[in-house]
Amino acid sequence: MNVAFIGLGIMGSRMARNLLKSEGNELKVFNRSPEAVSELQKAGARPADSARAAVAGADVVFTMLSSPDVVESVAFGESGFVEAMEQGALWVNCSTVNPSYTRECDERARARGLRFLDAPVAGTKKPAETGELTFLLGGKAYDVEQVRPLLEHMGQKILHVGAAGQGSAFKMLVNALLAQTMLVYSETALLGEKLGFSREFLMDTLPNLPVTAPFLKAKAQLIKDGNYDTQFPLELMLKDLQLLDVTAYEQKQPLFLASLAKSVYGQANSAGLGREDFAAVFEHLARH
Amino acid sequence: MNVAFIGLGIMGSRMARNLLKSEGNELKVFNRSPEAVSELQKAGARPADSARAAVAGADVVFTMLSSPDVVESVAFGESGFVEAMEQGALWVNCSTVNPSYTRECDERARARGLRFLDAPVAGTKKPAETGELTFLLGGKAYDVEQVRPLLEHMGQKILHVGAAGQGSAFKMLVNALLAQTMLVYSETALLGEKLGFSREFLMDTLPNLPVTAPFLKAKAQLIKDGNYDTQFPLELMLKDLQLLDVTAYEQKQPLFLASLAKSVYGQANSAGLGREDFAAVFEHLARH
Amino acid sequence: MNVAFIGLGIMGSRMARNLLKSEGNELKVFNRSPEAVSELQKAGARPADSARAAVAGADVVFTMLSSPDVVESVAFGESGFVEAMEQGALWVNCSTVNPSYTRECDERARARGLRFLDAPVAGTKKPAETGELTFLLGGKAYDVEQVRPLLEHMGQKILHVGAAGQGSAFKMLVNALLAQTMLVYSETALLGEKLGFSREFLMDTLPNLPVTAPFLKAKAQLIKDGNYDTQFPLELMLKDLQLLDVTAYEQKQPLFLASLAKSVYGQANSAGLGREDFAAVFEHLARH
Amino acid sequence: MNVAFIGLGIMGSRMARNLLKSEGNELKVFNRSPEAVSELQKAGARPADSARAAVAGADVVFTMLSSPDVVESVAFGESGFVEAMEQGALWVNCSTVNPSYTRECDERARARGLRFLDAPVAGTKKPAETGELTFLLGGKAYDVEQVRPLLEHMGQKILHVGAAGQGSAFKMLVNALLAQTMLVYSETALLGEKLGFSREFLMDTLPNLPVTAPFLKAKAQLIKDGNYDTQFPLELMLKDLQLLDVTAYEQKQPLFLASLAKSVYGQANSAGLGREDFAAVFEHLARH
Repeated sequence: MNVAFIGLGIMGSRMARNLLKSEGNELKVFNRSPEAVSELQKAGARPADSARAAVAGADVVFTMLSSPDVVESVAFGESGFVEAMEQGALWVNCSTVNPSYTRECDERARARGLRFLDAPVAGTKKPAETGELTFLLGGKAYDVEQVRPLLEHMGQKILHVGAAGQGSAFKMLVNALLAQTMLVYSETALLGEKLGFSREFLMDTLPNLPVTAPFLKAKAQLIKDGNYDTQFPLELMLKDLQLLDVTAYEQKQPLFLASLAKSVYGQANSAGLGREDFAAVFEHLARH
Repeated sequence: MNVAFIGLGIMGSRMARNLLKSEGNELKVFNRSPEAVSELQKAGARPADSARAAVAGADVVFTMLSSPDVVESVAFGESGFVEAMEQGALWVNCSTVNPSYTRECDERARARGLRFLDAPVAGTKKPAETGELTFLLGGKAYDVEQVRPLLEHMGQKILHVGAAGQGSAFKMLVNALLAQTMLVYSETALLGEKLGFSREFLMDTLPNLPVTAPFLKAKAQLIKDGNYDTQFPLELMLKDLQLLDVTAYEQKQPLFLASLAKSVYGQANSAGLGREDFAAVFEHLARH
Repeated sequence: MNVAFIGLGIMGSRMARNLLKSEGNELKVFNRSPEAVSELQKAGARPADSARAAVAGADVVFTMLSSPDVVESVAFGESGFVEAMEQGALWVNCSTVNPSYTRECDERARARGLRFLDAPVAGTKKPAETGELTFLLGGKAYDVEQVRPLLEHMGQKILHVGAAGQGSAFKMLVNALLAQTMLVYSETALLGEKLGFSREFLMDTLPNLPVTAPFLKAKAQLIKDGNYDTQFPLELMLKDLQLLDVTAYEQKQPLFLASLAKSVYGQANSAGLGREDFAAVFEHLARH
Repeated sequence: MNVAFIGLGIMGSRMARNLLKSEGNELKVFNRSPEAVSELQKAGARPADSARAAVAGADVVFTMLSSPDVVESVAFGESGFVEAMEQGALWVNCSTVNPSYTRECDERARARGLRFLDAPVAGTKKPAETGELTFLLGGKAYDVEQVRPLLEHMGQKILHVGAAGQGSAFKMLVNALLAQTMLVYSETALLGEKLGFSREFLMDTLPNLPVTAPFLKAKAQLIKDGNYDTQFPLELMLKDLQLLDVTAYEQKQPLFLASLAKSVYGQANSAGLGREDFAAVFEHLARH
């Protein structure tokens, strides 16, 4: 298959690199700043000097872009790639966008004779690198099956969760769990310190218990190091909590703990921790 | 070794039964209601008709009792077993009690020439049965090593977390994580239902993600079945959250989310769900 | 002066009736459903059969409409009245709308050579009737002074709080205080009942103390009567709390209590109390 | 009547001074540190050099002491005054203590042939000085009537709220309203600042609206001055919120907002504001 990958940031560059391991496919890549393209060229990808050039002749087009605005511009803007895609080709959007915008992308793609999959990922830099992401797919089963072999090079779990838009909806649930679980863990561990346990002991012990989500192992390491190397910036998590809160209001499902979590992350953000990993909410609470 | 086990309730009976698998030891058991003693006798234990009779000649005495009051009465009351223990014998208290009472037990035991371990467990009926409990031990390393072979028949993890009292303190942290994680999961899943995912799909999917604590697999099953078979009653979890809240106040460590969680569990309890498993907080929120 | 009043609902009809008491002015009124116009005609107003007819020749135009959408349609829609206003005439918008829309109205009015005041009111049916509303004015001091004599027939307090849009911003603060204070009062009174005080005693006593906001006297009466005759529907209060929450996020000012209050009102709304007065949050908590 | 007053701290000294204005009564005063006694002697009171000496021959004994421990020691300790009181004399305890301890005092006083009133006050230094306190009385109507003329020199409102212990219970409700209303006001005003209103404008305006409790006028002045001159220390308010929370748990009445308020005051206390007036919670939130 001819495959295109557009968007080579922290996540996308690592995902594309794993895609190169798939046999029998040709990968063309594009990124707005050209350095990332050169890097992937060295690794074996074919460079494209525009999004349109990247998708020309492609059977499958992956996008990993930072926000709905960027997707809108790169896909549908003045030199948007959607118009250059082959009839019947499949666009797999891995960017995290809101469910309603995803459904809009799906409709506009279909109206142009294209196929579309909503494919946000759970997981950050490290699983992107090791090919252990979780894909949350919204769209048609047939389309999912077509790209599954490609996705398996980038991810460990390929979950088909519903129609287009449901991938993004499910991603929202995943981020809700991440944000709140991180906060619950932080508050509990800080009480543990007051009760006489050392930070190191707590960070080595709690994440290995069945009451603790597996992602906390990596976060516990950040806390031990006191170095909140950004996997997922706190300010973006706050934005996601706000989106969640609006969705909860629209759906008439009050979320007691998520609303409160938003206040605490908001306080941490105002205290200047927005660019740190969201695990820095621990640091914020430790100081106050 | 001669081993005694006092308290054969839901947990204790299963733990004692696993202890019988240890070789080269003799197990004497006692329980206030005699039926449980007969059951264990059939399985190979020697029955005792009083706590004092059970501990006579024992090197190690396990207790698994329901509250500090019962421990006080059985250990130190009128026919309390502590006076009948051999000099230098080791009392391993697996009952969940508060840290300060534990330290008191330790002091009183030592004053009588005994040794003491604080040994609350994480895990409920099923891991008690399969020998997969987690032991949270407070006390001296030497004493921990002596009983480790016995504990390994009952538990999968043997964590020595500090001096006497620290086992109970750590248990409090574990329960804090349990209660809040359950609630975060419930609220998030209920929003998921509003977003169009089926309960069955959510309960099959979310607990397998790295953002979800492993204990939720079993709770998800309860939710799917709509049958909150009691592993850990909601009203006891509420009591633990209250104890946690008091401890947080004493330690000057505000716990935003745990305090709010207490309000929600309190509401569920007032709504009549106190005797159900604490996972019934999902049911409460689903109804309101 | 020639005065027009558009929008004769629960609030507007009472306000217009009070305006009739001002001497030396002529009042023309318009409402989409004509019954309200007839009622005011009987009281001495001149009827108009369209918004445009009402504003023709008017020096001052009051609007009291239910939402931004209605303001948009009546003022700027196909037969919108703004085009029919005299050059230099003053539009006083008493409708509660969000600050940004208010600023937009101000700009569009000025672009057409009109003057504009943002004039939301604090107070509900009864103070509207007795002329005891509080006006929260945003706009130019000169314009405020011109209409002050008219406003004094409808309101007891005329607060000029800033430029156009600030009236609406201030109104948001007032509603935030209303919603949260009502909830704090409800929870506290319900604990009082558990402590042995009768509902009647509490409702007679607490609102007379300096720790209680004056508006609670009227709410306490609703609670005593168990009859939540709608002054301000709970579902609208919930909508205002959502708008507040979004504003707080935009302004990077976490609001711990307001976010939680939104969850509790949301729960009361889901329980079916949305059409009752927002004081029914007491009833909701009393039942759960 | 012969009247004794024991405890001449910030509150007691001002109250006793107002009592001197009552005609036809003789006032004997005692305080542990003698300076306060001298001050009152100059104002016309008779000094006593012990609590027992103060109550000898007294018809009515007022106490205004800082905690249950001090009441226990001064009233029932080694040289406790209770034993020295005349048969049938009336003890009016104005100290703020918990309801259960109050009922215990009542029982022990009655067992010795004395009468007892539970008489905590609402109001701080300034109303104590101007005789504008609110008395919250628990006890027998007959006893209330006997001391009403005396109380009216010290307070503006004399509320007889129930049997002994109910004064303290009611006081708990009053403090719950104070703490939460202060916090709601603070968060709302801080959002107001972000929306472009000046602190001075907000502090001059909001407290005059019917949505704002009257006590906030004085607190708004503290905020304007940025000087949290202690009327009621934040750390004591936190203690009261903790007592409230425990009571709410015992009474099975979850208090969503009060529990969260406790977390926020706890954070302010940990940030070093415990000795400031509790209005300093505004300052805490302004900084974070």
